[in-house]
Amino acid sequence: MGERALRVAVLGCGTVGTEVVRLLQEQAADLTARTGARLELVGIAVRDTSTPRDPVVDTGLLTTDATGLVRRADLVVELIGGIEPARGLVLEAIDAGASVVTANKALLAAHGPELYEAAESRGVDLYFEAAVAGAVPVVRGVRESFAGDRVTRVLGVVNGTTNFILDEMTARGVGFGEALADAQALGYAEADPSADIDGHDAAAKIAILASLAFHTRVSIDDVPVEGIRYVTADDVAAAGRSRHVIKLLAVAERRVNGEGEGISVRVHPALLPLDHPLAAVHGAFNAVVVDTEAAGRLMFYGQGAGGAPTASAVLGDVVAAGRNRVSGGRGPAESRYAELPVLGSDQVTTQFQLRLEVADEPGVLAAIAGTFGEYDVSIQTVTQEQAADGAAVLIVVTHRASEAALAATADAVARIPSVKRVLAVTRVEDV
Amino acid sequence: MGERALRVAVLGCGTVGTEVVRLLQEQAADLTARTGARLELVGIAVRDTSTPRDPVVDTGLLTTDATGLVRRADLVVELIGGIEPARGLVLEAIDAGASVVTANKALLAAHGPELYEAAESRGVDLYFEAAVAGAVPVVRGVRESFAGDRVTRVLGVVNGTTNFILDEMTARGVGFGEALADAQALGYAEADPSADIDGHDAAAKIAILASLAFHTRVSIDDVPVEGIRYVTADDVAAAGRSRHVIKLLAVAERRVNGEGEGISVRVHPALLPLDHPLAAVHGAFNAVVVDTEAAGRLMFYGQGAGGAPTASAVLGDVVAAGRNRVSGGRGPAESRYAELPVLGSDQVTTQFQLRLEVADEPGVLAAIAGTFGEYDVSIQTVTQEQAADGAAVLIVVTHRASEAALAATADAVARIPSVKRVLAVTRVEDV
Repeated sequence: MGERALRVAVLGCGTVGTEVVRLLQEQAADLTARTGARLELVGIAVRDTSTPRDPVVDTGLLTTDATGLVRRADLVVELIGGIEPARGLVLEAIDAGASVVTANKALLAAHGPELYEAAESRGVDLYFEAAVAGAVPVVRGVRESFAGDRVTRVLGVVNGTTNFILDEMTARGVGFGEALADAQALGYAEADPSADIDGHDAAAKIAILASLAFHTRVSIDDVPVEGIRYVTADDVAAAGRSRHVIKLLAVAERRVNGEGEGISVRVHPALLPLDHPLAAVHGAFNAVVVDTEAAGRLMFYGQGAGGAPTASAVLGDVVAAGRNRVSGGRGPAESRYAELPVLGSDQVTTQFQLRLEVADEPGVLAAIAGTFGEYDVSIQTVTQEQAADGAAVLIVVTHRASEAALAATADAVARIPSVKRVLAVTRVEDV
Repeated sequence: MGERALRVAVLGCGTVGTEVVRLLQEQAADLTARTGARLELVGIAVRDTSTPRDPVVDTGLLTTDATGLVRRADLVVELIGGIEPARGLVLEAIDAGASVVTANKALLAAHGPELYEAAESRGVDLYFEAAVAGAVPVVRGVRESFAGDRVTRVLGVVNGTTNFILDEMTARGVGFGEALADAQALGYAEADPSADIDGHDAAAKIAILASLAFHTRVSIDDVPVEGIRYVTADDVAAAGRSRHVIKLLAVAERRVNGEGEGISVRVHPALLPLDHPLAAVHGAFNAVVVDTEAAGRLMFYGQGAGGAPTASAVLGDVVAAGRNRVSGGRGPAESRYAELPVLGSDQVTTQFQLRLEVADEPGVLAAIAGTFGEYDVSIQTVTQEQAADGAAVLIVVTHRASEAALAATADAVARIPSVKRVLAVTRVEDV
């Protein structure tokens, strides 16, 4: 052991890249023993070699010639993020015969098939544990551990920023704007927070997990997204009163309807009962629940972001790819044989909760129930709350209904004279 | 895909074996696509071919000639359990060039090194996800995902029988005997329950996890074990009053003391705060918390036993071993390079809680605190409870202390005239 060396190139030297470089040095002996070869860092590609760096970074290894660097590496660690130049460099690396480890969810969710095909035809590995939920080993779990089972659903809290904001709203009763400002002040949200709060980050992650879980190509473009911008302090407070909590959920599930089998992949805020395993996921932690036919329910939990946790996931993949180099084996290839149709919003049903402000008078409930019935949306429970100003608030939870049927119902309910306002329509995931 | 076939032999046809046979048939097309080769079940070794079987089992495949069967297989699935004949058959299989998937924790915890060495020298795989915590993919996590990180602690609730019993005691206030009888009546405990309730099952599992997490050979003989037989209804009730719960914990942790680095591996009941992630693991579910230097805290959760969940884990390994056959690669080999010393009970410190029945008179606390000080055991908190009969109960939680120091302290405290009885001494894991 340790005689053979594998040349490692790191592309990008931000928070994660710096931690990867640190761990490669600090744990060199361990990594050599576990890989069966020495991991020799041959270069770190950056945009500007004169930017001040953490002292752990050997400035002699910095280069702006990323293309040249990937052509002299056995293992390329892509930590640039975004689509280009990351995509071009990953393809260059594969073309040059290097195995690739990436943390780039945007790239995988948009161009996964192209990268997989390149890696497959060149006979190299493509690993990406860190692209979903940071250090939480859910990619390996879904890709490998459940290979003998059939996944029915993946349900995740996979975005720390939105989870932090919703936690703040829940704990302190503040509105979205104030919670976002707090998150920004504490470094949990970017100056431009839209990728997180509008759900696009979660959408990329669930597209990746859905592809693996259902052996079907799922792109971020297949994922209808609703973020948390319009969640109000009232919504959060009402959720609490009914022993629920609002979380931004990333969902991928196998659905069977009249036309056969398909998958629904989506991101939206939803009400979870307080005793749901995902209700207890706080702050920057991530968790993913996987339901399978044989194994039942499983959950993975851990830190979803941050330099060191993400670097841990990256290095786990580096060791796996390195071991494959040493043994002459291959990691898992793209599995897309199932080719299940990805269902549109109009083909998928979910449960909804409607909060309605109504006149506190006889016959209101009958009128509302009648309207739901007309649209074939069946009601699971109705709860009446006394609102502060003396009006009544009705909380209606439906059985599964399509978004279109629900929207039509909500419109019709809003036109009932004794219904003053539809306060909120929120999805419910109670299983 | 699908042209090549891999010959699969299943040894043992109990609950898990039957489910493995069922999944091999029901998911044949999926398994072929995922493995890259058809998985052809060539035989099922049993003790008695005339025993009635589930209809899913093709009786034409049954054989009592296990040795002959393993010699004509590419993949051998060992589900016999226990040491012999399982050990001999696994070695035969490896010798014949087959890769082995086993769910046999007892065999691995006692003879792991022998099996690893045989597999290594023959160039075949040895997978065993199902040996620890059923369907929970913690073996793959610890063995592969954290390969780029340094594990500091593994803390698990890995025995469903004891967890069910302690849950019953907590929920219904009953004593150990009654809860055990319930568990037996419901099929959660065996007629001879000692392997579970005395902690030996958990000890085998934590020996396996400790070996993987710390790259060190750990045998079940290295694991000091204390079961739950002596946990009383009073202990459970007192735990609840202080917002704790008693769980049977399997612990493996890296410890640094004056003499250097070592690992402590042990199984014992312990008090966990109610907000600890393992406190919410109920009934037959298992969960394992892994703390690492870079990734921080991670948790894996799922069904720890049962035919279908265990079969799911077995088949995940079958697909992995099968893919390696197809690609010419190898799964992870034994990693034991670290060779950390396994510390004895006398070298390890833990926190303890002592419940003391004392005379309700001045000076008691001073006498007790003085005695703790004499033995260098430092006190973290003292809480006084009024007992039902008017006497006082003191609950003393210590900082970390060695078992020997704690035992000597408890003896000395018991001799203080105003101390009527030492009601219980229980370990505490509050992190």
